[in-house]
Amino acid sequence: MAGKNLQVLLASRPTGWVKESDFRIVESDMPKPGDGQVLVKTLYLSLDPYMRGRMNDQRSYAAKVEIGQVMEGEVVGEVVESANPKFRPGDTVAGRVGWQRYALSDGSNMRKVDPALVPVSAYLGVVGMPGVTAWIGLNDIGQPKAGETVVVSAASGAVGSVVGQLAKARDCRVVGVAGGAEKCGFVVQELGFDACIDHRAGDWQKALAAATPKGIDVYFENVGGPLLDAVLVRCNPFARIPLCGMVSQYNAVERYGVQNLMMAVGMRIRLQGFIVSDNMARWPEALKELAQGVRDGKIKYRESVTEGLENAPRAFIGLLKGENFGKQLVKVA
Amino acid sequence: MAGKNLQVLLASRPTGWVKESDFRIVESDMPKPGDGQVLVKTLYLSLDPYMRGRMNDQRSYAAKVEIGQVMEGEVVGEVVESANPKFRPGDTVAGRVGWQRYALSDGSNMRKVDPALVPVSAYLGVVGMPGVTAWIGLNDIGQPKAGETVVVSAASGAVGSVVGQLAKARDCRVVGVAGGAEKCGFVVQELGFDACIDHRAGDWQKALAAATPKGIDVYFENVGGPLLDAVLVRCNPFARIPLCGMVSQYNAVERYGVQNLMMAVGMRIRLQGFIVSDNMARWPEALKELAQGVRDGKIKYRESVTEGLENAPRAFIGLLKGENFGKQLVKVA
Repeated sequence: MAGKNLQVLLASRPTGWVKESDFRIVESDMPKPGDGQVLVKTLYLSLDPYMRGRMNDQRSYAAKVEIGQVMEGEVVGEVVESANPKFRPGDTVAGRVGWQRYALSDGSNMRKVDPALVPVSAYLGVVGMPGVTAWIGLNDIGQPKAGETVVVSAASGAVGSVVGQLAKARDCRVVGVAGGAEKCGFVVQELGFDACIDHRAGDWQKALAAATPKGIDVYFENVGGPLLDAVLVRCNPFARIPLCGMVSQYNAVERYGVQNLMMAVGMRIRLQGFIVSDNMARWPEALKELAQGVRDGKIKYRESVTEGLENAPRAFIGLLKGENFGKQLVKVA
Repeated sequence: MAGKNLQVLLASRPTGWVKESDFRIVESDMPKPGDGQVLVKTLYLSLDPYMRGRMNDQRSYAAKVEIGQVMEGEVVGEVVESANPKFRPGDTVAGRVGWQRYALSDGSNMRKVDPALVPVSAYLGVVGMPGVTAWIGLNDIGQPKAGETVVVSAASGAVGSVVGQLAKARDCRVVGVAGGAEKCGFVVQELGFDACIDHRAGDWQKALAAATPKGIDVYFENVGGPLLDAVLVRCNPFARIPLCGMVSQYNAVERYGVQNLMMAVGMRIRLQGFIVSDNMARWPEALKELAQGVRDGKIKYRESVTEGLENAPRAFIGLLKGENFGKQLVKVA
């Protein structure tokens, strides 16, 4: 391959809000696959809230990105050269190869995907990590039963939108929470949720109460902050709260303090954090249901596509602020 | 029976700290058992933090006490008259008959206990509801494994003292948290915990870190407040936090805000509230181990005994402030 590679590196560790200057965009030499390696050209880069944690120098479940390293992330790409018998040029793959135009891989962090089954970008969203996150968190921790009320935050996002549609398919009453009337309209009219609360409206607590007349049995937590407090006081006995993320807190210099956790004692509420990669054995079943749902038109999704890898930092900051609408992607090639 | 009865009624619903004036102590006529009923003379009344919740006019798992009603609570007593074939005069019983010297019962809220097995007051503590609470919360939610680190708050109290001793028997490293040097000394020297943190000392966070060099796998939560935040940042992956109570918050006009709940996501921490009466099927096994432990001297306990039913309100307020040392009882007769 001729030409140059383009990479996004971590330049500095942010305190509070991420700035574009926390990233550095560099041209570098085109990598050349050694024995057993594959050269992948990125088509789409996935941007996800968890990446904010990788920028920090703190104790976490996953290794942080070092200063000067390529930012961590998953892409869908095309194999352009291969010295690995498992991959051939032209193969479409999904893998954790980072924020770069071209990447080398030994194949261990990549899987082949079928571009004929669903649009390739979906392998970064509904038929990928975010979709499986929704599926595992809802089924294995949320354990919704027909007739129960399920509340989902970041309801128009990559994870929340899937959670709600799966819960509807399980005959639950589903209430989304999202930022702004446009997203709420999409959540109800396109995704088929029973209701959606605009957390930017002044009366959102009242709206949440009105939309959950029988209380809350499952709350799928993506955002943290005051919403969790409002949910806790409406939880029914034995409610389940899968803790998937708390994006409202990732850039907070002073974190929000949850005051109603005491409700969990008397109401026997279970709050449980999880990471989708803890349970890889569940992925095939999840991916099968999700891909089938997308093909049948039963699971809908929306994407925000930013053009050009050089715009990834700005798009990532927008994602953390909730400026995206649906799954945030960067179209790289 | 001749004579008068003495009862403690709820006089008003407290806002913030309970005051003695929130109770009213009244003499009343001696009750007379009707068909199927039993007249019980209270020997000991149990005072427990959960009673604070019964004084509130709020949505809860259990019915509140109405103004003018006898305060709810469990006693150990003696059957003095019986028109119920299951009980005979002279039987020692434990039951939820409230804060009063004499009570009528249809027998459904009472069980016979054996005064020869352990001292009768123990049926209100280590071989009663608090002990079973410790046993169920630790075993069914905490699920400690040998070699793990278990932290217990209110460690010298009725529940915490049992949690720690059971965890020691399961070969865990056990760290208590208690208020003051005297309680901490008791927890380590008498109960055999590996360490005890005095949360009234200025450097308690540092002491907690030093006492948990391998992190925290189980935190048995009795108190709430800043301790939970300090624990959350030291939790190991897949830590379990049985939420038994949050006594520090029961009288708070402004509740403490938990800021580190975000740790639960990445560390896959499970926080779970529970009520001991949800799982009555577990009681016999729990009581058997607890009674055996007390008889063998392997489970030790301490009691704070206040003399006289008329002093129950003051003793209850002291319990909420942590002024008791061990299981708080009122000796009524």
